[in-house]
Amino acid sequence: MNFSSKLLENAVNEFGKLPGIGQKTALRLVLHLLNQDYASVEKFGNTFIHLKNNIRFCKSCYNISDFEICEICASHKRDHSLICVVEDSRDVMAIENTNQYNGLYHVLNGLISPMDGVGPSDLTVDLLVERVKAGEAVEVIFALSATMEGDTTIFYLHKRLKEYPLKISTLARGIAFGGEIEYADELTLGRSITTRVPYENSLTK
Amino acid sequence: MNFSSKLLENAVNEFGKLPGIGQKTALRLVLHLLNQDYASVEKFGNTFIHLKNNIRFCKSCYNISDFEICEICASHKRDHSLICVVEDSRDVMAIENTNQYNGLYHVLNGLISPMDGVGPSDLTVDLLVERVKAGEAVEVIFALSATMEGDTTIFYLHKRLKEYPLKISTLARGIAFGGEIEYADELTLGRSITTRVPYENSLTK
Repeated sequence: MNFSSKLLENAVNEFGKLPGIGQKTALRLVLHLLNQDYASVEKFGNTFIHLKNNIRFCKSCYNISDFEICEICASHKRDHSLICVVEDSRDVMAIENTNQYNGLYHVLNGLISPMDGVGPSDLTVDLLVERVKAGEAVEVIFALSATMEGDTTIFYLHKRLKEYPLKISTLARGIAFGGEIEYADELTLGRSITTRVPYENSLTK
Repeated sequence: MNFSSKLLENAVNEFGKLPGIGQKTALRLVLHLLNQDYASVEKFGNTFIHLKNNIRFCKSCYNISDFEICEICASHKRDHSLICVVEDSRDVMAIENTNQYNGLYHVLNGLISPMDGVGPSDLTVDLLVERVKAGEAVEVIFALSATMEGDTTIFYLHKRLKEYPLKISTLARGIAFGGEIEYADELTLGRSITTRVPYENSLTK
């Protein structure tokens, strides 16, 4: 694209670095910002700098938090014997939104991915093993994506954790609610038959 | 959504104010930023503040520029007798990318839209009239969107400019290249028949 201004080009390039934002969208966003008043743009820019400078991660579960220990880990109403292992904070929010889980979390901050050069040492694996060693956990649930990276990570974590007296579980796989049989992939459909559940258990509570 | 951090929520809300960015996308962008190093995030935030504080608009055509007079207006290679009136800087770039136009531009900075409370005084209409009065322009081309707002703006501008000895033209309307007849709307298709062109003129040069 042919920019009439270097400043404009820089700003478009900054937005363009974000995932899923192409140059045309970036330009639209920059022009939108330019139409705002000085105070709004200043607030916009400073919010992210402020976030980056002041964000903390819970010392126990590594979830994003404003405090040393996040609200979930600090709550006495949660079941401290359950640890749900997730990839990032987004997954914590997604599971919290279901209102179906009352245990704690452990945020790995990524998945093992040799292709992207992400190994176990880049994740919070050691922190998880320490939590398990400390002994309060009775069950660890792997709530990781059903991808190559997710499976690799589960395989590795299982190897690290199997020496401890723990129940280790993963999310149920099957046909999604609202999902149509004919569009389900063979792997999922096949698995949903072999792991079929008694009718009474399938009713939503 | 249930945020574990107020800082995070603020940052998501700032992104969410941008057009076309919902809360889920905003969260993805913020988490992406959080994974960058301090310097990158600081650069990201400061770029927009710097842009807003230092951006200039060409004194002649009102296009975004780093100088008092933009490169297009200052160029002796451009045809100063042609003024192409556009809504914003994006349209200037779009037309420049065609390599089919060698005149000057005039950026209105919006379109007349009574619904959104935008009147002629919010646009650079007076500046355009002054340029025409100054006398260098021979033709004014309205390159505005084929919407209610675009048509209203053309109607108003035509009224303001008709007293001057000018050729006034608008963009050709018709079937787009690659467009299929059966999917064209009736208005466009009808107009493309009544304003049909001799075969020799239709060949791309």
